[in-house]
Amino acid sequence: MEQEPCKYAEATSHNKEEHADDEERDPESNSLYQPLLKRNRTLSSSPLAMVGAKVSHIESLDYEINENDLFKQDWRSRSKVQVLQYIFMKWTLAFLVGLLTGLIATLINLAIENIAGYKFLAVVNYIEKERYLVGFIFFTGVNFLLTMVATVLCVRFAPTAAGPGIPEIKAYLNGVDTPNMFGATTLFVKIIGSIGAVSAGLDLGKEGPLVHIGSCIASLLGQGGPENHRVKWRWLRYFNNDRDLRDLITCGASSGVCAAFRAPVGGVLFSLEEVATWWRSALLWRTFFSSAVVVVVLRAFMEYCKSGNCGLFGGGGLIMFDVSDVSVSYHAVDIIPVAVIGVIGGVLGSLYNYLLHKVLRLYNLINEKGKIHKLILSLIVSLFTSACLYGLPFLASCTPCDPSLTDSVCPTSGRMGNFKQFNCPKGYYNDLATLLLTTNDDAVRNIFSTKTPTEFHTFSLIIFFGIYCILGLFTFGIAVPSGLFLPIILMGSAYGRMLGIAMGPYTNIDQGLYAVLGAASLMAGSMRMTVSLCVIFLELTNNLLLLPITMLVLLIAKTVGDCFNPSIYEIILDLKGLPFLDANPEPWMRNITVGELVDVKPAVVTLRGVEKVSRIVEVLHNTPHNGFPVVDDGLIPHVGLPDGATELLGLLLRTHLVLVLKKKWFLNERRRTEEWEVREKFAWVDMAERWGKTEEVAVTNEEMEMYVDLHPLINTTPYTVVESMSVAKALVLFRQVGLRHMLVLPKYQATGVSPVVGILTRQDLRAHNILSAFPHLERSKGSKKRH
Amino acid sequence: MEQEPCKYAEATSHNKEEHADDEERDPESNSLYQPLLKRNRTLSSSPLAMVGAKVSHIESLDYEINENDLFKQDWRSRSKVQVLQYIFMKWTLAFLVGLLTGLIATLINLAIENIAGYKFLAVVNYIEKERYLVGFIFFTGVNFLLTMVATVLCVRFAPTAAGPGIPEIKAYLNGVDTPNMFGATTLFVKIIGSIGAVSAGLDLGKEGPLVHIGSCIASLLGQGGPENHRVKWRWLRYFNNDRDLRDLITCGASSGVCAAFRAPVGGVLFSLEEVATWWRSALLWRTFFSSAVVVVVLRAFMEYCKSGNCGLFGGGGLIMFDVSDVSVSYHAVDIIPVAVIGVIGGVLGSLYNYLLHKVLRLYNLINEKGKIHKLILSLIVSLFTSACLYGLPFLASCTPCDPSLTDSVCPTSGRMGNFKQFNCPKGYYNDLATLLLTTNDDAVRNIFSTKTPTEFHTFSLIIFFGIYCILGLFTFGIAVPSGLFLPIILMGSAYGRMLGIAMGPYTNIDQGLYAVLGAASLMAGSMRMTVSLCVIFLELTNNLLLLPITMLVLLIAKTVGDCFNPSIYEIILDLKGLPFLDANPEPWMRNITVGELVDVKPAVVTLRGVEKVSRIVEVLHNTPHNGFPVVDDGLIPHVGLPDGATELLGLLLRTHLVLVLKKKWFLNERRRTEEWEVREKFAWVDMAERWGKTEEVAVTNEEMEMYVDLHPLINTTPYTVVESMSVAKALVLFRQVGLRHMLVLPKYQATGVSPVVGILTRQDLRAHNILSAFPHLERSKGSKKRH
Repeated sequence: MEQEPCKYAEATSHNKEEHADDEERDPESNSLYQPLLKRNRTLSSSPLAMVGAKVSHIESLDYEINENDLFKQDWRSRSKVQVLQYIFMKWTLAFLVGLLTGLIATLINLAIENIAGYKFLAVVNYIEKERYLVGFIFFTGVNFLLTMVATVLCVRFAPTAAGPGIPEIKAYLNGVDTPNMFGATTLFVKIIGSIGAVSAGLDLGKEGPLVHIGSCIASLLGQGGPENHRVKWRWLRYFNNDRDLRDLITCGASSGVCAAFRAPVGGVLFSLEEVATWWRSALLWRTFFSSAVVVVVLRAFMEYCKSGNCGLFGGGGLIMFDVSDVSVSYHAVDIIPVAVIGVIGGVLGSLYNYLLHKVLRLYNLINEKGKIHKLILSLIVSLFTSACLYGLPFLASCTPCDPSLTDSVCPTSGRMGNFKQFNCPKGYYNDLATLLLTTNDDAVRNIFSTKTPTEFHTFSLIIFFGIYCILGLFTFGIAVPSGLFLPIILMGSAYGRMLGIAMGPYTNIDQGLYAVLGAASLMAGSMRMTVSLCVIFLELTNNLLLLPITMLVLLIAKTVGDCFNPSIYEIILDLKGLPFLDANPEPWMRNITVGELVDVKPAVVTLRGVEKVSRIVEVLHNTPHNGFPVVDDGLIPHVGLPDGATELLGLLLRTHLVLVLKKKWFLNERRRTEEWEVREKFAWVDMAERWGKTEEVAVTNEEMEMYVDLHPLINTTPYTVVESMSVAKALVLFRQVGLRHMLVLPKYQATGVSPVVGILTRQDLRAHNILSAFPHLERSKGSKKRH
Repeated sequence: MEQEPCKYAEATSHNKEEHADDEERDPESNSLYQPLLKRNRTLSSSPLAMVGAKVSHIESLDYEINENDLFKQDWRSRSKVQVLQYIFMKWTLAFLVGLLTGLIATLINLAIENIAGYKFLAVVNYIEKERYLVGFIFFTGVNFLLTMVATVLCVRFAPTAAGPGIPEIKAYLNGVDTPNMFGATTLFVKIIGSIGAVSAGLDLGKEGPLVHIGSCIASLLGQGGPENHRVKWRWLRYFNNDRDLRDLITCGASSGVCAAFRAPVGGVLFSLEEVATWWRSALLWRTFFSSAVVVVVLRAFMEYCKSGNCGLFGGGGLIMFDVSDVSVSYHAVDIIPVAVIGVIGGVLGSLYNYLLHKVLRLYNLINEKGKIHKLILSLIVSLFTSACLYGLPFLASCTPCDPSLTDSVCPTSGRMGNFKQFNCPKGYYNDLATLLLTTNDDAVRNIFSTKTPTEFHTFSLIIFFGIYCILGLFTFGIAVPSGLFLPIILMGSAYGRMLGIAMGPYTNIDQGLYAVLGAASLMAGSMRMTVSLCVIFLELTNNLLLLPITMLVLLIAKTVGDCFNPSIYEIILDLKGLPFLDANPEPWMRNITVGELVDVKPAVVTLRGVEKVSRIVEVLHNTPHNGFPVVDDGLIPHVGLPDGATELLGLLLRTHLVLVLKKKWFLNERRRTEEWEVREKFAWVDMAERWGKTEEVAVTNEEMEMYVDLHPLINTTPYTVVESMSVAKALVLFRQVGLRHMLVLPKYQATGVSPVVGILTRQDLRAHNILSAFPHLERSKGSKKRH
């Protein structure tokens, strides 16, 4: 019973082995009432995933409330004052998350605008003196250095800071803990790296990293500081659990989006639609509060910068693409170009997803070779980017300035403005330089600019579109903090504006609005969000009249995109191997029961309520599981129960077993402990920690013969399913309630039947793992019609 | 075993009776390891609730997928074409919901604006001729008649059409089916009644009813038409289940909000924040689509009406309160008045909730007395309203028109405009008449009007505020379709504007914006929504710059309101007795297990896999339950199992038992049926219907001795919990997964123990019911500190 839990299905499993080799038999040939033949395979459940650019061991999070005696005691002993403390802290932390995210976003914006600004001023200076080569060397050199700083920091100190971080946050909120995602080092590298990478003119944005930064701040605040220097403040102890941390990180993510786009409602909706897995009305409200704080901070900062205190930052400020002054008038016929934009966005978006997937796989191969390879890859991309941005404007012809414009407006001599002189004579401007030789934010602002129907030539826009397609594909995977929003906006706005030029004679809609719609369509085609993108664009463009056509474009683009492949974040999640559980179970999951899944797993290891130390040590050493069902046979006979009755006590987490060994909470005889004994030894706070490796625990031979009363540590209320439950419905339960372990109970009731048939985890319920153990389901997947 | 399921806890239950009378013993004095003493009470689970103004029997909905053999067969046999049909229908229905809601909203707006418009024109006509009494009689008479039409329709044909309908929709989406909520009669009465009630000048809005109308349309479309004239179209059969209907009704509700406020994003968020219980990303998207359709329809209609084809409808159109032309500039000091508005909104909102609760209880007493009482109540309210609206403006003094305004603007002679002449001489206007003697929409538009700092006197605003406080309390409960949004907006805008006047010298914010903020604060204080209200106000006022202060006001008002009482919708839900399950379990629910709940319920009634007809008839007659666990003892011995082993087969719904009896699917001997036998008799479509009353079924004595094979009808995958599960966690499961029945399994494993200990339903998990059976929990509720 102890070593090998009693399984009633021994006969069946014998049967299974017999038929193991005739896998080709039609699994559907059985009668409906006979269980399908079991495959003699095991569920592979390797908890490994790409974290940053490294393969790491990942763990699941405990979002379920671990209702053991200690928890209940602590919970009962919480006074009203403590409950108020908790609520107060919750709101204070939400406030601090908003405040700090707002401040750091301000800092990043200031740094980028100033670094990139002075860089461009110097370059313009060289060009004015016609010292083109020196200008090129300076431009390339500065970009090279900035990229190097960003990459070295990322590669050396925090590989998890590379990329946008949004997929990992999404996975975290789904219940997957990727190590080192939310540490202080990661935060620091992400901030500096983001400033470096964006200032270096690489084709990436600060939006994704800001989401990660917001989440990092939230996580650090919730934990009371970085890993090794935590504040042990009593009030913070309430937040030392995965559930409250999850809520905080949701706040952080939406604050990040809000800071990136200055779109508070859009930020909240982004968290809701794209990032979060669970959502409560109360959380909606708190997230909204954090976002409001961010907006107030950003507003105050912009107010301050208006007076010129922020160096080169000023003018347009943070509202990237304000088109509120345009009177939008459109008619029924305008539906057609709008629909065309939507379709193009969907097709290009899914094509982008497809190609980016290929590039990322290639990059993974390169990145795996070592740190130096990562650095070289980044630097090559930087050199290529610099060369393109500087060199391509020479291809464009000079356009004479519109005579109605004053000299100070066209050509522009400084950094800002729509009409860059570049290599052109006085009175002329180079439209491609206006788009390329500037920060990405300014490029977007220029291409979104309205009432400028003749400013950009089709030829320039084609070059712009082409180069940003190439850069967008090859920049994303390098080891620097990089966001996906901006590259996609740049690409989308280019083809939107081209379409606007083409439609010119037939439409009333401004070219700038076409560019906005193009950007929206490509976002929807690649990221597959609707409501949140709609609101973000609403808040970005500050023009409510655009709402109906934006909605239309987004709906069409998403629909078209969904015909081809999943969203970019899902692709990245899959590529990284993060075990994200999707909201909807696959249809074929109705054809298989959890009992069948459990049968192909190694037998479940159970413990007894009062267990020998040697057995615990053995279990910890020999099994990698993180949860063990605790089952008692009728040691203390119960009234009304027959002899040999067994009882399901609950579920025990590995970390608590390690805790017991570490604290050496051993008994000399096999007995139950009293409440005071437990409370003397353990605080509730101990339960929330993750207690490292088993190897660190030394147990003497003498202690091996002693006993441990596990009862007070058992989660007495684990969620369970009966073995006849279909995997589809079990998955719904697993995800909706946020489980880490799900116990499978027998459908038979008899003495001698083990009260637990097995235990299922996140990995066991992943479609890919099930399909590899039950290939016949794969066959039925293709054609649903099977009778 | 058949008559009384074997309960292992017989000894315990004996024990229970022994201690039944010492209820006063401290329930916490036991050791932690002993179960708390059971109370010898039963869980009262009366499925009765106020539906409209009548007490009716309510049922729960089956949102869980009933995975029985028939479902599985049907599901497996669905071809790809059928899956595409389903997806196509889903989107078509979402489109139709949007289209029809948009059209009906158009119709309602047209009707109201024209009826009320001609009424006011005639009244103005009488007043101009100084025939004040005739004017009063005409005004009161028309209002009286319109109210009578609305009330008679409501009382006579569809009592469920009274009120806003939002609480019932909220309950439906939570899993409670209130009868006759979504029928064709209800829809019709709601439309006509809403037109009548709003045209009658009663203090109520068309917003709530539009939400109900949208949901009715969705439900009717999904079911293929009204109850008795359903279209039996094959494609529609996929929607004949509670799950798909739920999604459709969510679409309908958000379309309704969208139509009411022309706020598509706000509509979606309203559904999400306030109405829906479950939410998926895919649904978010479809809801958004419906809302987009509504907006397009409304826009097209307004475009058409601009040319004057819609009678008196025109001008302002549907955008009720467009303040987009105001340049909002505010500074740090403006935070103070804004915070004050928020606090006032919170206090007044919760006070309004409190008083409305009292009024509604009083009205319930009146309404219970019969139809004629309801009618009289409505008519009295109508007379009082008419008298106030007509009489009070005489109290206001005449104000001379601003000389800068032309004669056509001030005083206004027609229906619209800000300066009603009323009883004043030429060149003067009556500001109170401007606010009162007009439609509610126009009143809001007037009071929101900006750049009019001297137009309204404080005295007039005080009267306006006072009268609408009284009307707002006493109008809502009468038997006509009535929305809560507008009365609250009217009240809130009044005190907002008053505060604006008071703050005049110290602030830059326009009085009109103060009115908007006041309305928002009272909404948040009463309805306790944040994000959706924020977006609705954003879309209403068409001014993004207002966003930060709106957020601030909403957050403060909600926080203050939450200190006093729950939201108005929760109060109404509670008042109506609808068993709404809240997202968060009560804290004391951790102290009680489902096993304890089950123990105070009558013993669970189980069936066998192959059951005698007489037993089925008996069970149906003697127990009101809607679900029965099916348990088999080892008739067909299983390898590896001891004798006497029992098996949990699943859960059978009452409706399917009735179906079996109706179809007379009886066997002569006790045997299992083959798949083809089942398929011959039942279609999957049959399973979705709700099969009426047991009384309709006649079974002969001969048939009584026959058998039924229940296996194909059993839901083999019910969600289960072990009896040691805490009620708090069971409730989370129940609500998150959307259950109707939850089986409770024993924690002991032994021959002779029943495989099912009990069954829990929505009613059993309601806090109120649990507290009445376990009063000691109530005591612990107050003071959480108990050790």
